[in-house]
Amino acid sequence: MPIDPATGLVAALDIGGTKIAGALVDGEGRVRVRSRRPTPAREGGETVMAAVEAVLADLAASPLWETVGAVGIGSAGPVDASLGTVSPVNVPGWRDYPLVERVRRATGGRPVTLVGDGVAMTAAEHWLGAARGHANALCLVVSTGVGGGLVLDGRIHPGPTGNAGHIGHVPVDLDGEPCACGGRGCVERIAAGPPLARRALENGWRPGPDGDVSAAAVAAAAQAGDPIAVAAFERAAQALAAGIAATAALVEIDLAVVGGGVAGAGEALFAPLRRSLDTYARLSFVRNLTVVPAATGTDAGLLGAAAAAMPPGAGATG
Amino acid sequence: MPIDPATGLVAALDIGGTKIAGALVDGEGRVRVRSRRPTPAREGGETVMAAVEAVLADLAASPLWETVGAVGIGSAGPVDASLGTVSPVNVPGWRDYPLVERVRRATGGRPVTLVGDGVAMTAAEHWLGAARGHANALCLVVSTGVGGGLVLDGRIHPGPTGNAGHIGHVPVDLDGEPCACGGRGCVERIAAGPPLARRALENGWRPGPDGDVSAAAVAAAAQAGDPIAVAAFERAAQALAAGIAATAALVEIDLAVVGGGVAGAGEALFAPLRRSLDTYARLSFVRNLTVVPAATGTDAGLLGAAAAAMPPGAGATG
Repeated sequence: MPIDPATGLVAALDIGGTKIAGALVDGEGRVRVRSRRPTPAREGGETVMAAVEAVLADLAASPLWETVGAVGIGSAGPVDASLGTVSPVNVPGWRDYPLVERVRRATGGRPVTLVGDGVAMTAAEHWLGAARGHANALCLVVSTGVGGGLVLDGRIHPGPTGNAGHIGHVPVDLDGEPCACGGRGCVERIAAGPPLARRALENGWRPGPDGDVSAAAVAAAAQAGDPIAVAAFERAAQALAAGIAATAALVEIDLAVVGGGVAGAGEALFAPLRRSLDTYARLSFVRNLTVVPAATGTDAGLLGAAAAAMPPGAGATG
Repeated sequence: MPIDPATGLVAALDIGGTKIAGALVDGEGRVRVRSRRPTPAREGGETVMAAVEAVLADLAASPLWETVGAVGIGSAGPVDASLGTVSPVNVPGWRDYPLVERVRRATGGRPVTLVGDGVAMTAAEHWLGAARGHANALCLVVSTGVGGGLVLDGRIHPGPTGNAGHIGHVPVDLDGEPCACGGRGCVERIAAGPPLARRALENGWRPGPDGDVSAAAVAAAAQAGDPIAVAAFERAAQALAAGIAATAALVEIDLAVVGGGVAGAGEALFAPLRRSLDTYARLSFVRNLTVVPAATGTDAGLLGAAAAAMPPGAGATG
């Protein structure tokens, strides 16, 4: 069923360790129908799939379903778009799980496009957000983990397996601490929310009366001028800057878009990030790199999954 | 003048800080005519250009010159392919020098393609060497500096200014030593020949009776089992591995091709490089990365410059 760029919709799925979101998205990036279920992440693979099918059934109940020409999935990684499988770290019941084939069957044989969640967020920012109109950009999500995706030559660059732009596992500290991925000194190991908050605590920062020891609480302290909290954000910014500089040296980006909970700290993160970029990104062709906050908000995953599945004529650039 | 893929030739220039090499290259990668002059690197910009013109005049004296349809230049960087200018670090007389326009005029208005020397080496390896048939690869040159280039989706990816794949200035050591580029902890600052040899000397390695303190001499000592020399190569390998792992996480390469003088150390470099990659490249989509030596030898720069200028039908993939 070909998509009419003017009226055709894409069904989008955003699959994470805590929720499965679904939507019907039009060619202008409007969410027309939506559904959401918790991810039964500790259950078996078929139970997780049943939750996906329930979300799809909600969407299929809409009269708009008939105009759906394609399905886009953004999933927590690792994914393998070449095989159509996913193995999300936080969903142990899914290992090399044939999600593309299962979703294809559940949607009447419609074509299904799978990308990693970092690539999906990037597709959303490129289509509708801060990377719009940029030919070469890196988009990052800094929260419990650090993910990302690339725009190269004006298009999303998912890579052969849909994992490109995986900046969280770029090593920036040769002799750094072991990372959950099995590597060492990865950007995520330094800049994600949990290590950031842990570093503040280890260096003597103490939470307020509410006992909140999250990165958001450290951000509030940094915004209030607490020097230990400020230093914790500076270290995270340093790791992010080195990863962004690495990306710029390797693929010549001129924009980095940063979203996710840790980016919610605002200037507590962005000010030291810009300073650190000035340290690490020195070559002529990387020196003019700018860093801006993400613009697509909580629907980024859904909009990006839609963009990845949309044919070029339909407005998205994926 | 269109190039006949069967008979048309490309004029190639390989411009470095010590020599300017030129050749007429056919669609199968054979060098049919060649010329070479020393680079008058300490002279003014016009004197350097006169040496380029002398090389071109040598080539133009060949009866084959009439079949030359295009000119390819691989130059020491930084280059700016979008502006057609070069600013080689070791040729101070050239800053934003309009090399493309000057070569175009010197070759009767033929179309001129400019890439950085790392991209040129990569084009050669992809066309005729160890990266042949690979869709996604990184090629590196490890010698006095560390350069590189990328193959993505089956094609050379020069980036907007012709500098992509610049692995030498990927930061892998957040708190590392300052680099000549102005950055800190760059791959080149750790893995290039001069810092490698300096590290061996600082740690107590002593040269033989010939007083040779080059990286090649350290390589010979490492091959003979000298533990300090072995450790110096291990540290260089660690930095290279982190840079290669960063590239794999960012753009999903499955091959790294390593050439240049330091790679001439053979297993003294490649054995610890493979071990270190096993440390830093852990994600499912990067774990099967292989590392092999470059295959195109001393003509890599010329062949790659030719490949970059050759239309797809002529055999090269650039």
